[in-house]
Amino acid sequence: MDIRVINLKQKANLIHELHSYNLIAELNNYQLKLVKAKREFIWHHHEDTDELFMVVDGKMQIELRDRTLDLNEGEVVVIPKGVDHKPVCREECTVLLMEPKGTINTGNAGGALTDMTAEWI
Amino acid sequence: MDIRVINLKQKANLIHELHSYNLIAELNNYQLKLVKAKREFIWHHHEDTDELFMVVDGKMQIELRDRTLDLNEGEVVVIPKGVDHKPVCREECTVLLMEPKGTINTGNAGGALTDMTAEWI
Repeated sequence: MDIRVINLKQKANLIHELHSYNLIAELNNYQLKLVKAKREFIWHHHEDTDELFMVVDGKMQIELRDRTLDLNEGEVVVIPKGVDHKPVCREECTVLLMEPKGTINTGNAGGALTDMTAEWI
Repeated sequence: MDIRVINLKQKANLIHELHSYNLIAELNNYQLKLVKAKREFIWHHHEDTDELFMVVDGKMQIELRDRTLDLNEGEVVVIPKGVDHKPVCREECTVLLMEPKGTINTGNAGGALTDMTAEWI
């Protein structure tokens, strides 16, 4: 029975590789992944699932087709399935993602940024 | 298409009733609920689901049969399905719960504290 208290900021300090996906918890068939990012991601959507973003440190934007969402530390958004979005971190930020196991980071778009690996930290 | 950025602390400020369950987001068939609490809850477990706790403000404890977990602001724990636990907030704290829709707050235990209502804030 492995039940551990997870401190989000302490976990973030263990991440040394930008854009790596770092598993911190599982909830049934969902995964919580921490990412440190500084990049403009690509437009994509997920056909089969909503996706939750929570900013743990810094700030980010999520571009939608009709507007741009600004997220600061302590803010959450759920992007519904099928909705095109482009996450953008102009400065380095730490983001918690929550989505079902097997969700592809680039969704329907695929391409060079596709990364299905995730390591426990 | 209702996509809103949710500021956890601002949402917490909208809660005026201790121990009410306040919906702030849905992710597929999961719900995120904010609770302000100051009480010793009851021992229970959930037969069919894991349950995620995140402390948004203050601190809490989750008693397990063999030890007690201390959670502070910014900390998360997942209690696996079937595991007896007793959440305890000795001082007022704000906690984010994440679990499938329809999860009963008192799990297998039932009783007077059972509350299946949740309002969007």
